[in-house]
Formats: sequence, C-alpha cells, structure tokens
Amino acid sequence: MPKVSDILNRLEESATLAMARRSRELSAAGKDVISLSLGEPDFNTPDFIKDAAKKAIDDNFSKYPPVNGYLDVRDAIAKKFKRDNNLDYTPNQIVVSTGAKQSIINAIMSLVNPGDEVILLAPYWVSYKEMVSIAGGTVNIINSSIEDDFKVTSHQLAAAISSKTKLIIFSSPCNPTGSVFLQEELEEFSRLILQQENLYVISDEIYEHINFTGKHFSIGSVPGMAERTITVNGVSKGFAMTGWRIGYVGAPQWIADACTKFQGQITSGANTIAQKATRAAVEADPAITHPLRDAFLKRRDLVIEKLEAIKGLKVNRPQGAFYLFPDVSEFLGKSVNGVKINTAEELCNYILEDVHLAVVDGAAFGAPQCIRISYATSDDILVKAMDRLKTALDKLV
Amino acid sequence: MPKVSDILNRLEESATLAMARRSRELSAAGKDVISLSLGEPDFNTPDFIKDAAKKAIDDNFSKYPPVNGYLDVRDAIAKKFKRDNNLDYTPNQIVVSTGAKQSIINAIMSLVNPGDEVILLAPYWVSYKEMVSIAGGTVNIINSSIEDDFKVTSHQLAAAISSKTKLIIFSSPCNPTGSVFLQEELEEFSRLILQQENLYVISDEIYEHINFTGKHFSIGSVPGMAERTITVNGVSKGFAMTGWRIGYVGAPQWIADACTKFQGQITSGANTIAQKATRAAVEADPAITHPLRDAFLKRRDLVIEKLEAIKGLKVNRPQGAFYLFPDVSEFLGKSVNGVKINTAEELCNYILEDVHLAVVDGAAFGAPQCIRISYATSDDILVKAMDRLKTALDKLV
Repeated sequence: MPKVSDILNRLEESATLAMARRSRELSAAGKDVISLSLGEPDFNTPDFIKDAAKKAIDDNFSKYPPVNGYLDVRDAIAKKFKRDNNLDYTPNQIVVSTGAKQSIINAIMSLVNPGDEVILLAPYWVSYKEMVSIAGGTVNIINSSIEDDFKVTSHQLAAAISSKTKLIIFSSPCNPTGSVFLQEELEEFSRLILQQENLYVISDEIYEHINFTGKHFSIGSVPGMAERTITVNGVSKGFAMTGWRIGYVGAPQWIADACTKFQGQITSGANTIAQKATRAAVEADPAITHPLRDAFLKRRDLVIEKLEAIKGLKVNRPQGAFYLFPDVSEFLGKSVNGVKINTAEELCNYILEDVHLAVVDGAAFGAPQCIRISYATSDDILVKAMDRLKTALDKLV
Repeated sequence: MPKVSDILNRLEESATLAMARRSRELSAAGKDVISLSLGEPDFNTPDFIKDAAKKAIDDNFSKYPPVNGYLDVRDAIAKKFKRDNNLDYTPNQIVVSTGAKQSIINAIMSLVNPGDEVILLAPYWVSYKEMVSIAGGTVNIINSSIEDDFKVTSHQLAAAISSKTKLIIFSSPCNPTGSVFLQEELEEFSRLILQQENLYVISDEIYEHINFTGKHFSIGSVPGMAERTITVNGVSKGFAMTGWRIGYVGAPQWIADACTKFQGQITSGANTIAQKATRAAVEADPAITHPLRDAFLKRRDLVIEKLEAIKGLKVNRPQGAFYLFPDVSEFLGKSVNGVKINTAEELCNYILEDVHLAVVDGAAFGAPQCIRISYATSDDILVKAMDRLKTALDKLV
C-alpha cells in the first residue's frame, strides 16, 4: 500500500485552512455560507501598493532576486524596524520570505535540533506546533485561560524554562486570542530569557498594526534581547496583502544567515513583484493603517455585544488582531436533536452544518475549550453571522 | 557559543546561488564581471503574461488563495499537461507552489522517511541532494560521464535499484548537463521501476520548452507510470519568469494531497498575482516558446565552437536546457603563477579572480571533474566570456 512519509503522517492539516476548505466546498454546493474562519482583512490592497507592483512588472523585475530579498527592500524594512519598533537591524540581518509562515519555519529549522524543547504560550497560532514537529523538536505548552485574557504570566514562564529550552514562540497581538503583551510584561519575560545561556525567542508581530492599546512593543528592543530575538513581521495583515505572500524577519546575523541558507534550498527568494510592493508598504507612513485598525475596533465591539447576548458563552475584550476567542465549555456535553456535542470541533461542525457559519475550533490552537471567530468582515455580515451563531447555540440543551 | 541546528550545519549553500552572490559582490566592488552562473533566461517575461498579472492586481486577487492553487489555474495546468505531455491529471492532482524548487521539496518530504534510499542520476541539480538530506534520506548516486553524454543507462539503473529504493529523481532536459532522455530510454527506465512495488519518480521537466530534439517526452505518460510519477514543471525557464516563483506538479492524488498538506504549513498558497500570470502562460500556444528555444540553440553552437578551441577542454553537444558542462580534468593538477589548481572549485575561483568570469564548479552537481556554463545571455557577452575563459585556461601549465 502506498503511504506518505512519517513526518507527513504526523503533520496536521492546518485547522484554519481545513475549515476554509470545507466552507468553500459547502459554498460550491450552493449553500449560503458565512466564513469567519480565515485570518485576513476584507479590505483590498491599497492603490499605491498596487501601483508599485505594476511599476515593478513594467520595469521587468522578473529575474531571480537574491535569496534574502532585494537590497532596497531589506533596507526599507530595516528603516521600518527602526522607525516603528526601536529595533536596530542592518539590511543584512533582514530576510524576506514567502509569507511570515516561511519566516517562522526558516527560524525554527535554523535553531531546533531533534529533541530540543520549544515553549509555546497557549493559545498559540496553529502552525507553530506543526513546524516544531517538522524540525523534530518537542513542545512544552504553557496554558492560559480567558479569565487571564489568555496571557501567560512571567511566573508561569519562569516555572517552564529549563536548561533544555531552546526557543520560545509567541505572537503579540496574538492569533488566535487578540491578546497584546505590554512593555512591562515583555520586559519581565526578557529578564527570564537573559538568565539563560542559549535561549531564543521568535516574536511574531504580524498583527502589529492592529493594536488597540495605542502602542506596539517589540521584545527585541529590550536591552540585550536583540541577540536573542527573531522579530517576525510582514505585510499581510496591516496592508491587506495576504495573497501577496511576503513576510520578513530581523535577526542576529548568524540566524539570518541560516534562514537564508535554508530558504535557498526550499524556495529561493520571494516573488519579485510582491517584494517591490512590500517596499512601498513599509516605506509608507504607518498612520495609513489606522483607518483599518479603527474599523476593526468598531467591529470588535459590535461582535462582543452580540456574543454577550448568547447565554453560556464566555467572552473577553482583546486588545488587538481581529479575532475573538470565546470559551464554549458550557456547551460541551450538551445535545441537539439527540446528538451529544463533546468537543469544540464537533461544535464547529454542527454550527457549519446547522447555520452555515464557519468558525474554527480551538483545539489546534492549544485551547480545546474555545472557538476562534475572525471579525475581519463587514458589519452586516457580522450581525447576520452572530445571529446564526446564537440560533445554533440556543438549540443546545 | 550560539550555533545553528545540525540540519542547517549539514546543509550546503546552493552552489549556484553562492557563485551568483560572489559575482554580485565583485561587481559591487567595481569589477566588470560576466556571470554565466545562474540558470535563467536573459529575456523579459512576455507582455501578454505581464498584462495578465496587472489585470489580476486590478481585479484585487490579493486574498489567500487555496493552498494548492486557484482552481482555474490548476485547470489550465491540467489541460497543458494533456495538450503537451499526454498526461491525464485532474485539477485536484495539481499543486501550485513557490517555484519548482518548492514542488520538489514538497514531494520529497511527502515520500521519504529517514533512512530511505533515493537514487540520483549524476550530474544532478544541486538542490536534490540537499533536499533529500533535509528529509533524512540517503542518496545513491549513479554516475555518468561526458563520453556518454552524461546519460545514465538502464543497465546502470537496474544495478542500482533495490527493495530499499523509494524514489528516483532526475531532470530532462537536464540541469546541469543539458542532456535529454529520449522516449525509448524513459520506457526502459519505466520497465525497471514498475517491477518494484513501492518506487516513485520525481521527473523534473522545468526545461521542457528548451529542447532541441524536437520532442519532449514525459515519463509519467508511459502506461502504468502515472501512479508512480510526480511530474514537476513551472513557468520559470520556458517563459522567462524565474522571479515570479511559480512551479507546479501533477501527481497521484495521495501524493498531491500530501504536498498540499506540507506546503500548507510552510508557505501556504503561492503568490496570487503570479498564479494568474501562470494561467496566461500555460494557456498560450507552446509555439510562442520556440523563438526562445531557437535563440538558445544558436548560442549553444556558438559557445561550443569557442570551447572546442580551448586546448584540454572536453565538450559535448547537449540537446536541451541552456548549459554546457565541459570536463576540465585535464586542467586539474596544473599550476598558474606557481599556485597549483587541484579541484574544479579552485579552478572556478581562479577564473573568477583572474578574468572576472563566473561559472559554477561541478562538485555540487555530483561531477567534480566538470564546470557548468550557462549560455543564457547575449552572443556578444558569450563571445567575450569565452575569450576570457580561454585566456585564463591557457595560462595553466
């Protein structure tokens, strides 16, 4: 019998992509599906960025780029890191990749040996765990709950770190919870990390521009942390450029070099046209992202109001990204039409089939008691979606 | 001391990319460098493809695409496989990736377990070996020489295959040698492969359109081989689209599914704009690639004539791609300015420093007695480059 490799057998299909695929299939079958499953803004890429891309096409930027990205693009990214994040990277410390997803696997493959321990702060983004598995690392998961706004404390982190720990990975603003770590919290984390000899951090800051606290803070800017931090960012979320597939890192030189080496064998340099579009995006005044952020804030409050009207659902008020991550524990063990719902996954499947609403269960994010709702869509659709959710959940007894 | 993971330590920097980088550095230092090191056409992407990309930008194809590619793009690729290669793939058996490089690593990761044996036909493309190393597989290399036009015979293949062999990887037309396997040779290979239970082939056909024999043949079209073959292709070489980074495979469904699963965790779907550009390319009449092919054929003959005038160099007349792969054994062990040249690598470094000409040594391709010369540049530059090469080699005594 033909069979795939063990690594592929172990690998989970990305839960968010799987739910997106199932809802696309249901749509194709003629159902009026609302999908709140994918993490992407519903805006179009701004015109000035599209114009930069078209100019790159006209100018024939169609040859192989350097593996780590065009120098002018890396230079623009280095300036952005300085301007927005108080991070000092030379252009040679920047690596441009095919999406922040690739930025992260590059860094993990560069650092993690089979058996090395990687700490994930749960709830975590789905792919972190699978990527560590590809590298053969073992994960040490620190849990948090909605009562703590899904924020792991420095006490928890201190208890989890050991000499075996090679890497800590987290996102802030967080996918899936929308939680934002504040400067003082990240300084506490840094103090613990700097006590170790050989401990690194992947700081996933892809939601930087969707932050309602008024200020984004980069852990790499804490004194001493530049040598320990791989700062991951990209243009997907802040500039509505998910399909362009450009992520980037700033990192210590030896890690940047390793990322380039790995990427050189996997995909080479990222799409040339998208690189030039990225330059336009990162060179722009970051204030252009504020209307998008403000729109998300308004929608967050709209959705929270609707969710709070659903009996049994626990909701918090996250400070960034465009997700809510309600706790559905109250519904697990209940039944509908004589069928018992045991897990959040079964709950999500029931919601999809009953009211044609796609949301993602929390298990793949390390939080099997939660579901993730992306509110990156119009007010009208959100209201309709929340009404559908209420209809479905109210049937559970 | 900080250090990278073992896998990164084992991984070689791509030799072609390294030489390209070194020649860029020398150029930046003000030297008049001619680089014949990279494998890309010197033409611009055709206008109708650029127009399709600009239309995709205007039409806001900027959201996440499906991981395996847009359906209309996969449909166009399936039709191309039928039209040009007599291959029957459904659109669901197609996976669109960030370059053929990613198509190949997807397939290798999907099939190869640590310890599995993978046969490479040497000289082979540089990245095959490194990719197998990432998967933890072991390579079994079958050598060939310029006297055989660098074509491994079915007798050699028969002797190498065992029950431990999981996968065979080769390219035709071949990078780095330009050799082309004919239909009867691939039918012989197929007979051997089909005798085994669980043996697969990655057939890298990225140089399909640069074939001087008049006919490209796909091993996957041999009866029975569709279930055993991952057919790799893309738009980089035939349509002068290297920087757009689009490759694709047609494969048995279970392998296509595994490739999609792996890619979903590494990079997700490929750049949306480049996908739409790819659709335009593969839907076009393949005859549009003939002027490019004819230009390469004329250049091949020009370069061969110049190379044959260099005493001690062994040259053959390859039937495809845009490379010559002369055997430089005669020069190894000779000296210049009192310095002995021991390897092709030392020879390439000497040529770069002495006459500012970048060519790639054969060691990374599994042929340490050869050098690779890409002739994908203008006649004028080629003449000048060959004169430089003669100058440098004539000094060796």
